[in-house]
Amino acid sequence: MLGQMMETPLLVTSVLERARRFFPRSEIVTRSAAGELSRLSYADFYKRTARLAGALARLGVVRGDRVATLCWNHHRHLEAYFGIPSMGAVLHTLNLRLHPSELSFIARSAEDKVVIVDRSLLPLYQKFAADVPSIRHVIVVPDDGATPPDLLDYETLLAAERDDFAWPPLDERSAAGICFTSGTTGNPKGVVYSHRSTVLHTMVSCMTDTLALSEGDVVMPVVPMFHANAWGLPYSAVAVGARVVMPGPRLDAESLTTLMATEKVTLAAGVPTIWLGILALLDAAPKRFDLSSIRSMVIGGSAAPPSMIEGFQSRHKLHVTHAWGMTETSPLGSLARIKRSLDAADPAAQLGLRSTQGYAVTLIDQRHVADDGRVLPWDGSTMGELEVRGPFVASGYLGGAGADRFTQDGWFKTGDVVTIDAEGYIRITDRSKDVIKSGGEWISSVALENALMSHPAVLEAAVFAGRHPKWDERPLAAIVLKPGHSATKAELTAHLESRVAKFWLPDDYLFMAQIPRTSTGKFLKSKLRDDHGDMLMGR
Amino acid sequence: MLGQMMETPLLVTSVLERARRFFPRSEIVTRSAAGELSRLSYADFYKRTARLAGALARLGVVRGDRVATLCWNHHRHLEAYFGIPSMGAVLHTLNLRLHPSELSFIARSAEDKVVIVDRSLLPLYQKFAADVPSIRHVIVVPDDGATPPDLLDYETLLAAERDDFAWPPLDERSAAGICFTSGTTGNPKGVVYSHRSTVLHTMVSCMTDTLALSEGDVVMPVVPMFHANAWGLPYSAVAVGARVVMPGPRLDAESLTTLMATEKVTLAAGVPTIWLGILALLDAAPKRFDLSSIRSMVIGGSAAPPSMIEGFQSRHKLHVTHAWGMTETSPLGSLARIKRSLDAADPAAQLGLRSTQGYAVTLIDQRHVADDGRVLPWDGSTMGELEVRGPFVASGYLGGAGADRFTQDGWFKTGDVVTIDAEGYIRITDRSKDVIKSGGEWISSVALENALMSHPAVLEAAVFAGRHPKWDERPLAAIVLKPGHSATKAELTAHLESRVAKFWLPDDYLFMAQIPRTSTGKFLKSKLRDDHGDMLMGR
Repeated sequence: MLGQMMETPLLVTSVLERARRFFPRSEIVTRSAAGELSRLSYADFYKRTARLAGALARLGVVRGDRVATLCWNHHRHLEAYFGIPSMGAVLHTLNLRLHPSELSFIARSAEDKVVIVDRSLLPLYQKFAADVPSIRHVIVVPDDGATPPDLLDYETLLAAERDDFAWPPLDERSAAGICFTSGTTGNPKGVVYSHRSTVLHTMVSCMTDTLALSEGDVVMPVVPMFHANAWGLPYSAVAVGARVVMPGPRLDAESLTTLMATEKVTLAAGVPTIWLGILALLDAAPKRFDLSSIRSMVIGGSAAPPSMIEGFQSRHKLHVTHAWGMTETSPLGSLARIKRSLDAADPAAQLGLRSTQGYAVTLIDQRHVADDGRVLPWDGSTMGELEVRGPFVASGYLGGAGADRFTQDGWFKTGDVVTIDAEGYIRITDRSKDVIKSGGEWISSVALENALMSHPAVLEAAVFAGRHPKWDERPLAAIVLKPGHSATKAELTAHLESRVAKFWLPDDYLFMAQIPRTSTGKFLKSKLRDDHGDMLMGR
Repeated sequence: MLGQMMETPLLVTSVLERARRFFPRSEIVTRSAAGELSRLSYADFYKRTARLAGALARLGVVRGDRVATLCWNHHRHLEAYFGIPSMGAVLHTLNLRLHPSELSFIARSAEDKVVIVDRSLLPLYQKFAADVPSIRHVIVVPDDGATPPDLLDYETLLAAERDDFAWPPLDERSAAGICFTSGTTGNPKGVVYSHRSTVLHTMVSCMTDTLALSEGDVVMPVVPMFHANAWGLPYSAVAVGARVVMPGPRLDAESLTTLMATEKVTLAAGVPTIWLGILALLDAAPKRFDLSSIRSMVIGGSAAPPSMIEGFQSRHKLHVTHAWGMTETSPLGSLARIKRSLDAADPAAQLGLRSTQGYAVTLIDQRHVADDGRVLPWDGSTMGELEVRGPFVASGYLGGAGADRFTQDGWFKTGDVVTIDAEGYIRITDRSKDVIKSGGEWISSVALENALMSHPAVLEAAVFAGRHPKWDERPLAAIVLKPGHSATKAELTAHLESRVAKFWLPDDYLFMAQIPRTSTGKFLKSKLRDDHGDMLMGR
């Protein structure tokens, strides 16, 4: 027996139409590269979005075509976020931090037909455009000056169109957007969001126990719109009619903090690096900025250090919401909210919970599994790879890549090694490629690094797997000492003995001047393994 | 181009499983008919729900079978709310306020196979059960004493089952529940909810700008679970892991207010009559109850008088959330929340907005149309029939009844006459044409007229709404007797008693020589209301 309810599809178009009907006076505030603020009402935003759709249609964009953006966070990028999917095309956000060779691979894979690019990013665009034969048109957003006369200008195109557009009826499973993972191993892989997944993710974001977005909020996505859909905030903020503040390309702590204070931002979201800078600024001048409007600073993208969460809370009365997600999860997967039953916990325990990755948001299932696929208990100590599933989790990648990331029984393998406690709180202990497997037991490199870095003489520590004839793998620690400090292997082992299990103790230490790093500043553990991974084999 | 996201169906089962995984220590508090409180953890609630599904399967219930409930608000009814749809069967809530002849019509129409009935309601059940040939089993909930030995006992059945149940995979469009409208014109009509519509309605309810439900809430549905799914609160409260307080059959102001205070309820929901009683109680003894835990009192079912909303706010600092909906809209359709841009309005204007039906919730579209189908402007003065659409609005009724309530272009005609202002706020001006709303329940004037006119002495009868100090409205009947016949008020009441529910009986009768009519010969009920509508106000 079927229900007898309307088969209204879940479409990005409905989010846009709702914004027009109920929130015409809400605003989108954009700060330009030059630092000037502009304000656009939702009513005008809607008209411009319709005009963009008209312009794209006139250029020959049809249903299913990919339209790429290479843009900072600003209102025109938001117009693309809504106009492209609502007309039936597919929004493909290009990551301006990538190497031109990666960008050409990504744009070729997605078969982008049109690219909307900020004038300030034209030099980057021109480094890869010639390698992408599918591109028919490039539209220039005049973000920092006039569009060169030989190129299509965004504003000129819009000026020629109408304030409305006959949005087509669409299947909710239609593609709405594509975002590529950053591809730490192998080529980047494309995640293809549907209208349905986007709308469901939007609704979950707005639930009170997720981000609690409201029409009364002032939302500032610091996280770039080319990075996992800016965590869905462009959709969820507009869905509720919130004021949106777009910071443009100026992402230094001073500019962001000033903007938060003057625009009375209530919720801002960004990666830990951004927040570390802001915390340092606030610590240096605690009374300089009035941030009393802020109710939540959302931190994700990588794990936030507990000391930072605690610093905001205790020194500045600013509440941090620690979230976890991936491009493949739209991206909100879990969020560290404190349950009522744990609310009476002592401050240290509370901070401990706030520093976890939290528990899965609504509609998402979580589990962690051993190497052999066994589902593991939620005991807070057994480590396993985190797997998730739900209607806004990818079921595969563009073109069939990465099929090994999906289990037979319908889960996505995140690559994060975690523990899960009895209440469901997830704690990342490693990336799966970095975990150390010693005699069938898993050892967390992250936990060992944190313990080592609490030693007064240690500046940096990178723990990696050394191959071992008996135990398969044993931990090795690369250590950079603070200038003028010293520590012996025995002292470090003694320091660790009170902090970790005995079998976790590194078999050896390597003192070095610096630890090899990736271009984005992460430890390059693969090089450590290549250079030193066999040093235990003779023992 | 299709998205590549998991095709996870939206199922009631997922809500239940999430409750078990993440909120095992949350509680369901039930007050029995005798006034005693019992507490059930979600962990135990889950097990009992699985046991109920096991028991129903053992009785032969298969996918698509209708399982009816005739119950007050208590934890066993909540078990039915989750166990029946999650096993693939269809929950059909029977309204215990209806006349046995209506109940038999409704249960026959739904082809109920099993009925779960409170022991206290067995006398009512026995008045119509024999007329429903589809019923195979009746399960008695021992709410006020032991189950009679010849009948199936709910607890005995559960005791024989396992704590888990292999919930079947389901299509999200599968029927999850049936609720009949009260049938103001003609026979009651069945609305068939799907799993998808139920989950979407649940998520929208939990959004911050709707009811903002949170795990930290203590939710008390005073609105009966047999009345439009208790506005979806059984699903939405469990979805977020809130504490649920079930008031049982004691719905007097004293009992409810005491329960709110002692259980520290944060959100309670009921019809205006309930709240009027509570307001009177608070006014009489302002310091007797500590209701400081309450953040929202949700009022719906019929329009709340502005004086009541204002009274709670100004005299008791209690915040009223005024909502509108219908059985056909799951039921939350709109909600009177104040937008930021209107927040500076003066108190009178604010109260005016709070007294409207608000604007449509997320995923719902609204419009109002003239008699000729023209879509009307949002100018705050033009009256038209409210129409809504969305994925949790009915697309038809069980068995194809009432097709004239649905437009060619996919909207549901609500029957409410409204204005809509420029911001989208809906105001019901002539609630619906002739329906009488008595204490949140609808009374059909047409049905009463038909019953009255079946009396041998009655020539014509026009039933209209008289305003009433306690019940909002009560039926009044204008009667024209046949020449040469006579009938007393008592005789007419006796005639009706066997034909309609007791609370439908008119409060008074007006004998007249002729009933005022429109030019086209219809009863001019507005004139009757103008001339006689206040005759009950002094009682």
